[in-house]
Amino acid sequence: MRHLLLGLPRLCDRRGIEVEGMTTAREFLKGNEALAYGALKTGLNAFFGYPITPSSEIPETLAVEFGNSQYPAFKVFLQAASEIEAINMVIGAAATGAKVMAATSGPGFSLKQEGISYAAAMELPMVIVDVNRGGPGLGNLGPEQTDYFQATRGGGHGGYRNIVLAPCSVPEMAAFPALAFSLAFKYRIPVIILTDAFLGQLKEDLMFPEVPAQQFETAWATTGARGPERHVLSSMHLELPELNRHSEHLRSKFEEIDRSEQRSEKYQTDDADVVLVAYGICARLAQRAVKDLRAKRIRAGLLRPITLSPFPKRELLALVGRGVQNFLVVELNTGQMVEDVQLAIGGRARIETAQKVGGLLPTPLDLVRRVEAMRR
Amino acid sequence: MRHLLLGLPRLCDRRGIEVEGMTTAREFLKGNEALAYGALKTGLNAFFGYPITPSSEIPETLAVEFGNSQYPAFKVFLQAASEIEAINMVIGAAATGAKVMAATSGPGFSLKQEGISYAAAMELPMVIVDVNRGGPGLGNLGPEQTDYFQATRGGGHGGYRNIVLAPCSVPEMAAFPALAFSLAFKYRIPVIILTDAFLGQLKEDLMFPEVPAQQFETAWATTGARGPERHVLSSMHLELPELNRHSEHLRSKFEEIDRSEQRSEKYQTDDADVVLVAYGICARLAQRAVKDLRAKRIRAGLLRPITLSPFPKRELLALVGRGVQNFLVVELNTGQMVEDVQLAIGGRARIETAQKVGGLLPTPLDLVRRVEAMRR
Amino acid sequence: MRHLLLGLPRLCDRRGIEVEGMTTAREFLKGNEALAYGALKTGLNAFFGYPITPSSEIPETLAVEFGNSQYPAFKVFLQAASEIEAINMVIGAAATGAKVMAATSGPGFSLKQEGISYAAAMELPMVIVDVNRGGPGLGNLGPEQTDYFQATRGGGHGGYRNIVLAPCSVPEMAAFPALAFSLAFKYRIPVIILTDAFLGQLKEDLMFPEVPAQQFETAWATTGARGPERHVLSSMHLELPELNRHSEHLRSKFEEIDRSEQRSEKYQTDDADVVLVAYGICARLAQRAVKDLRAKRIRAGLLRPITLSPFPKRELLALVGRGVQNFLVVELNTGQMVEDVQLAIGGRARIETAQKVGGLLPTPLDLVRRVEAMRR
Amino acid sequence: MRHLLLGLPRLCDRRGIEVEGMTTAREFLKGNEALAYGALKTGLNAFFGYPITPSSEIPETLAVEFGNSQYPAFKVFLQAASEIEAINMVIGAAATGAKVMAATSGPGFSLKQEGISYAAAMELPMVIVDVNRGGPGLGNLGPEQTDYFQATRGGGHGGYRNIVLAPCSVPEMAAFPALAFSLAFKYRIPVIILTDAFLGQLKEDLMFPEVPAQQFETAWATTGARGPERHVLSSMHLELPELNRHSEHLRSKFEEIDRSEQRSEKYQTDDADVVLVAYGICARLAQRAVKDLRAKRIRAGLLRPITLSPFPKRELLALVGRGVQNFLVVELNTGQMVEDVQLAIGGRARIETAQKVGGLLPTPLDLVRRVEAMRR
Repeated sequence: MRHLLLGLPRLCDRRGIEVEGMTTAREFLKGNEALAYGALKTGLNAFFGYPITPSSEIPETLAVEFGNSQYPAFKVFLQAASEIEAINMVIGAAATGAKVMAATSGPGFSLKQEGISYAAAMELPMVIVDVNRGGPGLGNLGPEQTDYFQATRGGGHGGYRNIVLAPCSVPEMAAFPALAFSLAFKYRIPVIILTDAFLGQLKEDLMFPEVPAQQFETAWATTGARGPERHVLSSMHLELPELNRHSEHLRSKFEEIDRSEQRSEKYQTDDADVVLVAYGICARLAQRAVKDLRAKRIRAGLLRPITLSPFPKRELLALVGRGVQNFLVVELNTGQMVEDVQLAIGGRARIETAQKVGGLLPTPLDLVRRVEAMRR
Repeated sequence: MRHLLLGLPRLCDRRGIEVEGMTTAREFLKGNEALAYGALKTGLNAFFGYPITPSSEIPETLAVEFGNSQYPAFKVFLQAASEIEAINMVIGAAATGAKVMAATSGPGFSLKQEGISYAAAMELPMVIVDVNRGGPGLGNLGPEQTDYFQATRGGGHGGYRNIVLAPCSVPEMAAFPALAFSLAFKYRIPVIILTDAFLGQLKEDLMFPEVPAQQFETAWATTGARGPERHVLSSMHLELPELNRHSEHLRSKFEEIDRSEQRSEKYQTDDADVVLVAYGICARLAQRAVKDLRAKRIRAGLLRPITLSPFPKRELLALVGRGVQNFLVVELNTGQMVEDVQLAIGGRARIETAQKVGGLLPTPLDLVRRVEAMRR
Repeated sequence: MRHLLLGLPRLCDRRGIEVEGMTTAREFLKGNEALAYGALKTGLNAFFGYPITPSSEIPETLAVEFGNSQYPAFKVFLQAASEIEAINMVIGAAATGAKVMAATSGPGFSLKQEGISYAAAMELPMVIVDVNRGGPGLGNLGPEQTDYFQATRGGGHGGYRNIVLAPCSVPEMAAFPALAFSLAFKYRIPVIILTDAFLGQLKEDLMFPEVPAQQFETAWATTGARGPERHVLSSMHLELPELNRHSEHLRSKFEEIDRSEQRSEKYQTDDADVVLVAYGICARLAQRAVKDLRAKRIRAGLLRPITLSPFPKRELLALVGRGVQNFLVVELNTGQMVEDVQLAIGGRARIETAQKVGGLLPTPLDLVRRVEAMRR
Repeated sequence: MRHLLLGLPRLCDRRGIEVEGMTTAREFLKGNEALAYGALKTGLNAFFGYPITPSSEIPETLAVEFGNSQYPAFKVFLQAASEIEAINMVIGAAATGAKVMAATSGPGFSLKQEGISYAAAMELPMVIVDVNRGGPGLGNLGPEQTDYFQATRGGGHGGYRNIVLAPCSVPEMAAFPALAFSLAFKYRIPVIILTDAFLGQLKEDLMFPEVPAQQFETAWATTGARGPERHVLSSMHLELPELNRHSEHLRSKFEEIDRSEQRSEKYQTDDADVVLVAYGICARLAQRAVKDLRAKRIRAGLLRPITLSPFPKRELLALVGRGVQNFLVVELNTGQMVEDVQLAIGGRARIETAQKVGGLLPTPLDLVRRVEAMRR
């Protein structure tokens, strides 16, 4: 069993990313580099990007490894002339059944929203990495979690949902491309890996698993009209009933995903009377706070969403069912994931928030004090 | 008092758009045309657009009226080479303190998200019209309400909120630009007028008010370095504490908006035990359903949000406080506004949904049956 | 009579730019600024540009004067998103009969060639200023005359010719927009004002003429389908005989221009046995050399082409007819105008060249020595 | 010895394209297809294009063969988002020492001129195919030779020259990429293959030679900073003396090309008293006219330029030296190559022209009559 939260062997939910046959060779990499290698090792075919800080090490690493015979599946690396070109090239490659990825940060993620909407409508598997930086507009290069709504609510037009994964460590940055592609192809859906400037730049030890490159079913792809069947991938459905059917199909597909793919990790929740909810870098700060609270005999726990979309509502409800009456939602924005917590819990428990923006992080001590205040 | 829901003289909340000195000349216009004239009459200075169905009558009408001496304030009409150019030109014009507007539909609205995030960060007043069409991707030209999340949750990157207005008739299409500009300048914030293909194309009678063009305070604008004070409008805040302060300022500004600007309209809610919640074109269908239900002695009512952001949570809570235990959320998507209703009510009442997608509309009869089923 | 070569009252050919009613107010301006004011005073309606050194003072000056009530005809100033957008906007404006101008330098002039070819094919009057800088590629910001071929031979595709004017002083920079527009409208043809980094940046005294803004016949323009006649301006002629007729029409139009519009200025050529041929800034250096040669009793003269296209072949031939046997072609490139001199003279006299590239200028002394060497 | 003018075994100048080891397999291909295969067989590494009629079979053929193991050197095929992107990608690939080609037609060739100027300045080897279509502007899809000036005089800004090759048959379309690359790399210069809509679409028999893919010296290329020497390829030379040196270097390089690479083919010129000068498709019509004239005992001959730049001036002068007093320049434009003939001959013989535009071709009979008229 692969442990997701660094150095915490017991902390791993059954839905965690279990990887068999781990090699023993350790590496010390930045999160962005680890993500790039993770994608290569899962058999990435194509990458189309436009560099933007703090995600640039992803295209840089892939550019260096392009042509390396260790990655024979990696056929196309292209720096496009713009974020918009890049996402449209991703669409084109995805339509052929290729394993294709793009990486960007906030402003670029905004520019890609039209394309992601097209991809969602055409049911194209792809992986888009958003390394969340600070602020609306140009902001700064610090870490934030302010693209949460954009990633989980569909920043693009029209009714669709993405799968959104939130790694919390460099080993997870390495492991999540494999998970992302497996979900993307299973459901024919864009998968967003939503991470932040801190995790992208952080260096940690990791071991890459020795896994064979993944192969997926791509009978739907447009690979040239060689067989008797004509494949058309289009997002246009001019007839109203036809678009209605298609939209209902997308809805039921996402309902199936919601039922089957909620992923989260719990830490010390069994006897907890207060549970912190945090993802990504915040989960690590929250875990430290939980340890410190436990040292003070306060029964705190942590729920870490791994999938932000679908949101792990069931696990939250189970905690409420088990009697947890206090939740502290920790996030690097002015209130986004807290809405999903509220929607899951529906007034059945008290929810407070610890938020920080502008590239700043809350300290574990801040969180300890907030929990202590909640219990008064 | 101007009545907003067509032909329904009593249906007007105090927060409705009251317009004094109405002229008697009637006109018969499409919603998009009415919106364009409404913008002109409020003293629109500049429009930058890129035509996209079903919003194209807005730039078309403005192009025809450009140079008309009746609208001396209207100095710039420009069809840009792309949606992205258009929004960036809007930003430039807004930075000078001009009353500037753009209009688009789904795919174009997606392309504008980066720019809207910049504008939100720079606190630029502007009005963006999104005429929601069908589907993610290209979809079709039918009406939907699937851009609700994109408009209300900030489709762009980073933590910000827009004000979002939802007209429900051609007279409101005409009246809302004045409201939108007044809010945009009062709070220095992008205001979205979120309408749909049905309202954009629908023709109705209306009378334009005789109002003087609005004048706003623009001391913050960058109008040339003539005075002693240097004005800089930037969305970049490289220092973490500076971006933190700026983001907290944006948060508190939106909290003030949330306190002061929730707008909605109630119809037959005083003694209601079931309340339909619907905006835009759905509000009209829901009102018809309420009438039909009342004819059947069922005490139904309607709450119509006028501002989708800030969402009229107080009014919803007040209804719950008065004992309403059943809400039916009617919307043209697979579940977006319903989240705001749930967030407002927090488990204190039963919420069901009536949804339709693909450009199709529910009939009042559909809604009557849904309400009847809820009461069983 | 307005004298073209600065400070040289006698030096003015009959075809020079005579301007009546000169005011007495002197100004001291850069060449680029003078050109911008010259365009405004002739009633410029629209300017579309993309700034590029060393032409940027032209859009800068026009931007400052935009909205100045002294220039009521000046309705549109627009900085486009690229050189290509700018030229296509020029095409659109020109199609309405507007007096429209663009300004650029080498790399931008290259990007505009497709558009200029379209404009030539559609017979649209327009004025394009090219402030020649140094080198192919990015080169440097020094003066050169290396865009001569591009301007005179049609840098764009297909068979067409432009009229090309070459000012040699700041007063001519001011006066040539009027001449350029009058030729552009007379023949419905793009007119290039080909100048260089030296003349663009040089400051000189000048007086602007008090001339009424020019009015031209624009019955051909596409100003809205109000009359019985449909105007179509298109560069597409799919039928071979139709394109043949159109191309022959363009040819005969240019032959008429060649007959009627050759312009040049002579200095000390009456008794000359050696004639320097030079335009633009080189003409001034050559004139100084002629003076110095005359001081040495060497009968040198100068022919300055004012129109580079049509090239003043008749005047050159007349000099040969009068017995001039030696020509020294002075230009800031490695051999471009010299081809036109050779084509005009056809082997009937000796032609040598004095060339300098890279932003460097020959000195008058260099030219004196070259002439002395020729006479040995 | 490979004969260039189809079916005319004796017609081959020594400078013709001799190819050893011809295979016996015949193929029947369009000119554009033959050119694409010719490029592949010479070891093309990369193609960047944007399809435009009548050149589209070139990218189409290359797209089909991309990935074919017969062409292992062919690593990159990319359809860019615009002509401008394509030429800039060509520049990037050429800078690595790759054999890279682009193909276009008039409007696209105009859009590429900025890039070609950059490439000329950076001394990058590349092959650009221009399939000349009809007219300036959009024109039509018929054959013309109106891009002659643009190709030979440097359609881009600044002082540079290209090498320009003019095939006259499908076998030459196949053979010229090898010649073009060998010249491009020998001199580090862009080489234009200037052909027309007729030759591009014409189908003829041909046999491809069995030649090994060419290898060129690319020690100058920017292939990654692995050695001790830093390679920089730039077109910017801000210091005036540096740009002067660079421009003089380009000049002397082209003078060397002019001395060494003039290529042409003669037919029946030994005893001719009238010589037709024609290239490309016109050469074939002119050859037929020469045969018909010879049948009438008129001593006509043909000089076919193979290199339009450098122009085969020496061969023309030799003909004049041998006593030819009459030249008929046949071209599909209103007078472009005729200037090079005049510049070469310098008044020492009579030059007349036979021209046709709009996509129409002169007939051999037209030419016969013109020659007969000249001799009267």
